[in-house]
Amino acid sequence: MTKSPPDHADTGRFGPHILARAEQLARLSESEAGLTCTYLSAAHRATAAQLREWMRDAGMVSSIDAVGNVVGRYAGSTSAAGTLIVGSHYDTVRNAGKYDGRLGILTAIAVVDDLNRARRRLPFAIEVIGFSEEEGVRFSSAYLGSSAVAGRFDPALLRRRDEAGETLDGALRAAGLDPAAIARLGRAAHDLLGYVEVHIEQGPVLLDEGLPLSIVTSIAGAARYAITVHGSAGHAGTVPMALRRDAATAAAEIVLFVERHCAATAGLVGTVGKITVPEGTVNVIPKLCELSLDIRAAEDEVLQAAAADISAGSAQIAARRGVTIEIHETSRSPSVSCSPQMQAKLEGAVARCGVQVRHLVSGAGHDAVMFHGITEIGMLFVRCGNGGISHSPLESISAEDADLAARVLRDFLLHFSTSP
Amino acid sequence: MTKSPPDHADTGRFGPHILARAEQLARLSESEAGLTCTYLSAAHRATAAQLREWMRDAGMVSSIDAVGNVVGRYAGSTSAAGTLIVGSHYDTVRNAGKYDGRLGILTAIAVVDDLNRARRRLPFAIEVIGFSEEEGVRFSSAYLGSSAVAGRFDPALLRRRDEAGETLDGALRAAGLDPAAIARLGRAAHDLLGYVEVHIEQGPVLLDEGLPLSIVTSIAGAARYAITVHGSAGHAGTVPMALRRDAATAAAEIVLFVERHCAATAGLVGTVGKITVPEGTVNVIPKLCELSLDIRAAEDEVLQAAAADISAGSAQIAARRGVTIEIHETSRSPSVSCSPQMQAKLEGAVARCGVQVRHLVSGAGHDAVMFHGITEIGMLFVRCGNGGISHSPLESISAEDADLAARVLRDFLLHFSTSP
Repeated sequence: MTKSPPDHADTGRFGPHILARAEQLARLSESEAGLTCTYLSAAHRATAAQLREWMRDAGMVSSIDAVGNVVGRYAGSTSAAGTLIVGSHYDTVRNAGKYDGRLGILTAIAVVDDLNRARRRLPFAIEVIGFSEEEGVRFSSAYLGSSAVAGRFDPALLRRRDEAGETLDGALRAAGLDPAAIARLGRAAHDLLGYVEVHIEQGPVLLDEGLPLSIVTSIAGAARYAITVHGSAGHAGTVPMALRRDAATAAAEIVLFVERHCAATAGLVGTVGKITVPEGTVNVIPKLCELSLDIRAAEDEVLQAAAADISAGSAQIAARRGVTIEIHETSRSPSVSCSPQMQAKLEGAVARCGVQVRHLVSGAGHDAVMFHGITEIGMLFVRCGNGGISHSPLESISAEDADLAARVLRDFLLHFSTSP
Repeated sequence: MTKSPPDHADTGRFGPHILARAEQLARLSESEAGLTCTYLSAAHRATAAQLREWMRDAGMVSSIDAVGNVVGRYAGSTSAAGTLIVGSHYDTVRNAGKYDGRLGILTAIAVVDDLNRARRRLPFAIEVIGFSEEEGVRFSSAYLGSSAVAGRFDPALLRRRDEAGETLDGALRAAGLDPAAIARLGRAAHDLLGYVEVHIEQGPVLLDEGLPLSIVTSIAGAARYAITVHGSAGHAGTVPMALRRDAATAAAEIVLFVERHCAATAGLVGTVGKITVPEGTVNVIPKLCELSLDIRAAEDEVLQAAAADISAGSAQIAARRGVTIEIHETSRSPSVSCSPQMQAKLEGAVARCGVQVRHLVSGAGHDAVMFHGITEIGMLFVRCGNGGISHSPLESISAEDADLAARVLRDFLLHFSTSP
């Protein structure tokens, strides 16, 4: 292990620099107002070109691969010591914030730039990767970029169409990319030393606790459901309360059951993000109510138990109210643990930078998930301002926190070694 | 009071006859499938023509007035004894049932036909009126027909436009009617002996209790509200339950508060017919939730108290959850009492026909409301089948109940006198 002393000569300059670049990227948008940068749009390609230029300026050999990832390689002092990937994504949701994904790429570029200016090579190569697609907006399939680098790209997706009817295959060709080459992007596992990602928390916990950073222990498993409640329609004025079989009041009970149940279970969150009475009118008792459910937990057993409890609770509500409740699982992803060794190395860097070590489960999915089982993964969360809001123009981070994240990443890299 | 003995010579034949005519009218529809008959459509005008013909066949002098009402006059044995109106409406909601409104008109025609065949004149005139508009579908204004006869038509409505942009004035002219003549349709109060209406219950109470008929004591007052809950958006995976300000869970609490409160208060009903998270997505904590509220009570004090209680309950929910809740009243109509004398006369007829006397509050509005304060009003409800459903193709009544309603109306007319 290279026992370099902490190098704080240029701390304080990372933060404003990273934030200025995030502002600059945010001006490359599909929409007049706000930031929207979906896969292979003109804004997306302009963003890729800009990232590639910044990587080159930082001393990296940079390129755009067949799936649109921007890859910058900063060679190590020896050629055979393997590669550490530092990545995150540059695509966005619609009307997005400026830091989701981009913070991780810009932080990595800033740190490599710093090493390069100091003419400092590490005993391993660093690949900074700006993944082209993580949000799943355009083709309703997330992780297109990172899945390719992880060797997990599903070629069947090439036939998937966007809302305008264009296939992924066609969109890639139109952007001058070669769909057939995507299958060859997967890295050889034996060359990989690990995968590390800096990302905004996208939640309020660090803000609430007054801490700037945390180390991610795992990425929560998630299950999504479509719930349909079938009751009986009736005239709002003529059916006594006791004779109703109201789909919306039954749905309301499910919403509060989910909330109560999740609040009472450590590490479990549950959200009803959509609720609607199709063709509902003010003076008709709802016959139908549809809702969505998203539940997440760090441990798959907790998720499984929650799904069973919500199902049983709904069945009781249905029986008591004389309605029927259908619950269909629409997606499920298991939880993914971050490597204990990577966590320990990040803990060391955080502590050396003088910050209290905090651990968090990530409730959101990240590109890191794709590298689980292929190499060691680690993630560093950075505090969000503005109540912790994300996927919104209100998303914010402070220059101080961005600076701190870069210093921690720099320290992590300087202390990184291939032995545990 | 004419103390005629009960005349059951021809009972049993009213029911099938009335139901067959309801079926026949239901074939005059704007829609290929199902029954839709909105104001001044071709189907509506064909329905009016058919009703006019049946009134003439029943011995009435019949006409279509300036607002589209079909009016059949069955003169009394003396010319100066005044007029009793027996009415209901022939327009429908979209995809309607066959009996809402129409049952009352067809029952009245059948009974007058029976009197006419028996060459029996009563000591007062009967006006059977098929009101042209009660549901408020086309011009978002209900009671166009009955308000005109009651002398309450608002001429400002003539400028109101339907969804296609046509004014009420234009629609009337296109149908060959004279808008300027509507103001002259109001009856002289001194000539009116009363207003009586037979109508389906549009609810499940009689069905639930095994009773065919009931006498309406009052028509409930109603208030409608648009409720908006403002919370905070957040990522479904990253915001712990305790840190959320979820607009949908707060809305769910309001829904259940309304339900609980109305169930615990005699004569009060409350319905949330619409609920939606605008632009809601499965993985975002709702920032906004909109709902409608309709509350009704036989007594205005109960309605007023309920509105205050729901407002206070919502304020508590808002404070506890850190959300804001706006409640806007969108409409309010006071309750209307049926005349005690008319109720007593209907009670007598029901009892003489061998049926248990039951009283009900009408939760729905009816044309009778327009005559309150102008003449004595009375209403007879007829049991709905099929769980009491109305405003639906599933609306049903039995031939036996239709027959009984006609016999009660006939008995009521035979015993009706101008003295209490």
